[in-house]
Amino acid sequence: MLPVALDAMGGDKAPEEIVAGAHRAVAELGVPVALVGQPEVLRPMAGDLEIIPASEVIPMSADPGASVRRMKDSSLVRSAEAVRDGKASAMISAGNTGATMASALLRMGRIKGVSRPAIATPIPVPGHNPTVLLDAGANAECQAEWLLQFAQMGAVFARDRYGIVEPRVGLLSIGEEASKGNDLVKETHALLSRSGALSAAGATFIGNVEGRDVMTPDVDVVVTDGFTGNVVLKTLEGGMRTLVSAIFEAFGTSPETQAASEVLIPALLPLYGTLDPDNTGGAMLLGVDGLCLISHGSSSATAIVNAVRVAKEMHDHGIVDSMRAAVALT
Amino acid sequence: MLPVALDAMGGDKAPEEIVAGAHRAVAELGVPVALVGQPEVLRPMAGDLEIIPASEVIPMSADPGASVRRMKDSSLVRSAEAVRDGKASAMISAGNTGATMASALLRMGRIKGVSRPAIATPIPVPGHNPTVLLDAGANAECQAEWLLQFAQMGAVFARDRYGIVEPRVGLLSIGEEASKGNDLVKETHALLSRSGALSAAGATFIGNVEGRDVMTPDVDVVVTDGFTGNVVLKTLEGGMRTLVSAIFEAFGTSPETQAASEVLIPALLPLYGTLDPDNTGGAMLLGVDGLCLISHGSSSATAIVNAVRVAKEMHDHGIVDSMRAAVALT
Repeated sequence: MLPVALDAMGGDKAPEEIVAGAHRAVAELGVPVALVGQPEVLRPMAGDLEIIPASEVIPMSADPGASVRRMKDSSLVRSAEAVRDGKASAMISAGNTGATMASALLRMGRIKGVSRPAIATPIPVPGHNPTVLLDAGANAECQAEWLLQFAQMGAVFARDRYGIVEPRVGLLSIGEEASKGNDLVKETHALLSRSGALSAAGATFIGNVEGRDVMTPDVDVVVTDGFTGNVVLKTLEGGMRTLVSAIFEAFGTSPETQAASEVLIPALLPLYGTLDPDNTGGAMLLGVDGLCLISHGSSSATAIVNAVRVAKEMHDHGIVDSMRAAVALT
Repeated sequence: MLPVALDAMGGDKAPEEIVAGAHRAVAELGVPVALVGQPEVLRPMAGDLEIIPASEVIPMSADPGASVRRMKDSSLVRSAEAVRDGKASAMISAGNTGATMASALLRMGRIKGVSRPAIATPIPVPGHNPTVLLDAGANAECQAEWLLQFAQMGAVFARDRYGIVEPRVGLLSIGEEASKGNDLVKETHALLSRSGALSAAGATFIGNVEGRDVMTPDVDVVVTDGFTGNVVLKTLEGGMRTLVSAIFEAFGTSPETQAASEVLIPALLPLYGTLDPDNTGGAMLLGVDGLCLISHGSSSATAIVNAVRVAKEMHDHGIVDSMRAAVALT
């Protein structure tokens, strides 16, 4: 396997935690990793790891399109080029998400027939496989035909990523009936209901689902536009954070509750682990002609190890070719 | 104060729990309540309460528009007529939400100048005032001018309902910058940024907010279209339910955790109470020319008491007239 091109400069904890994750990934998974970034910064910590030089760093808050066009020697652009040029099997970044998408799209290009790439984000479901939510933010305005492709690509991802033989695809709406929702949803519902819409993807359309279904085992892939998807993702993040901190506050009410909580915390750790974004393996940009994984901004070394693991699995499954096939037939 | 017209036939637990709530509201709050529904069903449990007769009941899952047009002697239509005809100060229903909106809109009409009514739903924030989310589902497709009015009406509601002197209004988007979001959000951002947009409502526009801000004390009113708002509401409901049941499952891991959880549950009760939809007082349909409160489908007697309390407070504040003023000047 070609090395994974890891943007060593991207993320709140770059480069130290990112590079630490690279070393761990090599040791624990046996997957080769190349660090992409400024050699003078990386050399002291790179050890045996290959360095793909890039002199520029796109800041976390920079405008994606402009920075990718202007900063041609940035770690993000060079990571995407490594995949395009057959020097890397995948790219991973915990940096500027928009710039990661733009780099991948502009350098790797789209899979033939794909109108727009979409971000697929795993939403944790305690005790079950995560729900794949897409588009989680790549396209604020969408068309029904794009959402059909998101469904096809998301189903392939759910199968290759979680081993779901026949993923159940739901369309996010505000009522189960086909008549419910906005115009985009109604139009997409009609496209997804056509026989064969998801057959090349090996998936089943289960109709509309609602917000309350996202974090349940009742659906494997939830399709929506990138505006709604991003709102859902961040709403859940914020809601979970609020609830968890209110619970910890209640735990500290008195010495008695404090003592009781010490008994409970070990039992709560698995749940905490399920919800920790470091453990999901990150989001994936579907529809570009190469593997591009997006790790969250505050990624630790563990998040990077998990992203490298996902990159290897998706590479071994040949997911890009499966997606090519899934979108080609409609 | 004129009696509150309570749809005694609407809701999963109607009529028993609804009527029990009416009795408690009269006793605890001293607010007169009239039961609207089938006299033969209600008479045995009505006691001294006035009954406004209505022979029909709109089912929970019926098509709102068609059922309201056809079932003119339904408890929902008669409740709305009671407000319109000056026989009731407000209507409350835990029944079919769409039919509640349609009844109120068709019978009471809109406040002059209001393009579309919107549902304002309080989102609980532990330790703080709830965040008012609107539109929570009345209008799946929206225009920027409507969202401007939602902001104005939502601000008046936040002030009258929670005593917030100068409510902070945020526009739900997928990034804080004005350039982020879909076309509707960008257009609405421009309208809300115009000087004076919220001055008659006594509110401040704080710019875009994200999903993660909804359940925090950082914003008082979150404005969005009815599709996104309903998705947010149900996503939070589902996410909270999943997390709370996973926590309770962890509590039952062993006899030790079971014992420890018994110490903790009293400390968690206030949080549980904050999240319980029976305690929020329900949602309110803003923009119709009269008071219309929407209680959730599984409302208990307590939910009805709280809704009656809110109806009285909103009546005493003269909220409909305040909303008339807030939308009149732009």
